[in-house]
Amino acid sequence: MASTTGETLAAAEPIADGRTEEGEEEQVVNPWEVSAKGGKIDYDKLVDKFGCQRLDDILIQRFERITGRRAHVFLRRGLFFAHRDLSDILDAYERGEKFYLYTGRGPSSESLHLGHLVPFMFTKYLQDVFKVPLVIQLTDDEKCMWKGLSVEESERLARENAKDIIACGFDIERTFIFADFSYMSPPIYKNIVRIANCVTGNKIVGIFGLTLEDYGGKFFFPYIQAAPSFPSSFPHIFSGKYSKLRCLIPCAIDQDPYFRMTRDVAPRLSYHKPALIESKFFPALQGESGKMSASDPNSAIYVTDSLKDIKNKVNRYAFSGGQDTIEKQRKYGANLEVDVPVKYLNFFLDDDAELLSIKEKYGSGAMLTGEVKARLIEVLSEIVERHQRARAAVTEEMVDAFMAVRPLPRMFG
Amino acid sequence: MASTTGETLAAAEPIADGRTEEGEEEQVVNPWEVSAKGGKIDYDKLVDKFGCQRLDDILIQRFERITGRRAHVFLRRGLFFAHRDLSDILDAYERGEKFYLYTGRGPSSESLHLGHLVPFMFTKYLQDVFKVPLVIQLTDDEKCMWKGLSVEESERLARENAKDIIACGFDIERTFIFADFSYMSPPIYKNIVRIANCVTGNKIVGIFGLTLEDYGGKFFFPYIQAAPSFPSSFPHIFSGKYSKLRCLIPCAIDQDPYFRMTRDVAPRLSYHKPALIESKFFPALQGESGKMSASDPNSAIYVTDSLKDIKNKVNRYAFSGGQDTIEKQRKYGANLEVDVPVKYLNFFLDDDAELLSIKEKYGSGAMLTGEVKARLIEVLSEIVERHQRARAAVTEEMVDAFMAVRPLPRMFG
Repeated sequence: MASTTGETLAAAEPIADGRTEEGEEEQVVNPWEVSAKGGKIDYDKLVDKFGCQRLDDILIQRFERITGRRAHVFLRRGLFFAHRDLSDILDAYERGEKFYLYTGRGPSSESLHLGHLVPFMFTKYLQDVFKVPLVIQLTDDEKCMWKGLSVEESERLARENAKDIIACGFDIERTFIFADFSYMSPPIYKNIVRIANCVTGNKIVGIFGLTLEDYGGKFFFPYIQAAPSFPSSFPHIFSGKYSKLRCLIPCAIDQDPYFRMTRDVAPRLSYHKPALIESKFFPALQGESGKMSASDPNSAIYVTDSLKDIKNKVNRYAFSGGQDTIEKQRKYGANLEVDVPVKYLNFFLDDDAELLSIKEKYGSGAMLTGEVKARLIEVLSEIVERHQRARAAVTEEMVDAFMAVRPLPRMFG
Repeated sequence: MASTTGETLAAAEPIADGRTEEGEEEQVVNPWEVSAKGGKIDYDKLVDKFGCQRLDDILIQRFERITGRRAHVFLRRGLFFAHRDLSDILDAYERGEKFYLYTGRGPSSESLHLGHLVPFMFTKYLQDVFKVPLVIQLTDDEKCMWKGLSVEESERLARENAKDIIACGFDIERTFIFADFSYMSPPIYKNIVRIANCVTGNKIVGIFGLTLEDYGGKFFFPYIQAAPSFPSSFPHIFSGKYSKLRCLIPCAIDQDPYFRMTRDVAPRLSYHKPALIESKFFPALQGESGKMSASDPNSAIYVTDSLKDIKNKVNRYAFSGGQDTIEKQRKYGANLEVDVPVKYLNFFLDDDAELLSIKEKYGSGAMLTGEVKARLIEVLSEIVERHQRARAAVTEEMVDAFMAVRPLPRMFG
């Protein structure tokens, strides 16, 4: 998968897929580019344009009723906000039918930032709730195709990233992590060819905004990201009665184009269309119009940051919606719409009551930016420290074990 | 590889790659189409257009001197008529350096015709002469992409074709046969991605005459046929000091586009450019402007034909350059340029003196078409009977053994 969740909230390159009728770009969201005029993505428009469905309160309540579990913070605060056929998955689960989860990551950088953790934190929650198997694709080949990394460097990054993913707490009895370069094998290759045989060059160019100037790998990578949506790509896990299992994919919405294509193809190959549950992008410290970029370490909180780094980054770089002076803040309160500390707390502060209270006080001027930032520093420090402890406990043997091509005998247990 | 050696001497579809300046097609030769205005391929023009080299008498004499073996009929009669860097291979061989052979087949039909055997007969000769390892690629994936065959049917045909190939007498201690679907694995996939990263979409479209209307597989198959040109695609055979081994590819000249592309890429990946030795096309019974086609069994002699079939096909369908009546034949003699029995004898009658004598007598009118055809029937019957005996002796275990992913410890022995 492309490095998603906001890493590329960047200046737009003109491609066909996001223009207004006048030919001017409004917003562009695809796996390699996320940009909007004025900086702020209009998610409502995106849902309409992509043709996915809104994840509304009624569906969230149904989710809670069927699973008997409280909805995850990311769900109840609208961060996972769109879906395709999630109701079908819930229907199937209610009938006692099984499904599997599929997510992934493009290992383009050594260490992950908090935005990268979002889909994995949510996927782990889904795995715990539904007790279902999960396949995680590390698209080292993609990074070799797009970023000009060598095969060896891409493989190394995939393995490093696998450690961060494992640190999110996935259940080894239900989880298979694989990197494309090392997993490439007849079962997945056959599905890649079957998918490719259903998609014309025009469609690939249209969906992904490629041109014939692009190098060859980019034209076939979409099939490689599509293939894990079909259980027969993993015969060591899904054989016999599981060979037509349904699939649910948690991801950021910029990955939707891959799975629109996959859903188009699925019925022709006698598979269920994969269902999707899709998130908004995680904002840069500088705000939604800023860019989280590996070349600017101050644009994001990395899971490798020290507590001092976190404090410094939040205090110095987190865009504030508060007023310039204490006096003005007391009088007018903060603009919560653009305030990054509040946005980050919205992702990571579990306590709904406390979040509400902060929003009220900060918005009315009873709280100052410094106080909100101090609370955010506590929250982020705790997450990062916990992650670093978990990451340090991940051994090479554990990576081998998660990536071993093996059956998962207790995957629904 | 595409089913080559003349199977597609067909009516032309307009593509850019074979037009005159006026936009009218002169001749089109690519892996999927071989056609010429008036039916006869101008091989001289083809060599110039492709930029390969003529395989002239001086090089053949050098081949004989260095190897101490008489040149194969296909060489000394100009059927393998073009090359790329064959002299480099001979130089290397003279210095005591090693190389390997690579050829292949697209398994599109159940049984092979004689034209299909030509590259394999010649490759076996090269293997015997040089005592070098050989990899044979069965492109079942390609047939799935181009012919709409199912994965399973393509795999079945590949295995059937492997039996015919084994029947040509390859040395199991030096030969690895693989089908793309079952061999797809990290080492070859990594090379596929490395190659794809060096070739733009424009180049693929230009070289292979694709359009964006084509399905996705066609855009990435060229990398799959290119990859076996690099020894690291076979780490079980070519590791350590053999990881940069030179490669020589015997094939029909319609495969040249794949390897032009491969040769372009090779230096960027620190490999030798693969050398090529390229054949003309094997003509249909109806003549060079006819089409050998699976849908017309009377257009070719199949290796499954009975002796009665052979007799019947040669007598009824082999295009004759002889005169209409015995009297006219005695007076004017045959036109050897268009005579199919003579063309076939040119491929398959070993005895140079006898061939010369037939040509003289037939050309002058001393021999009649019926007599030449009778001799051809003898020659073809012997080849087909020998092949059928050898094919009947090929067991499933032998197929498994040739296709086993294994080292070849005596490959240069």
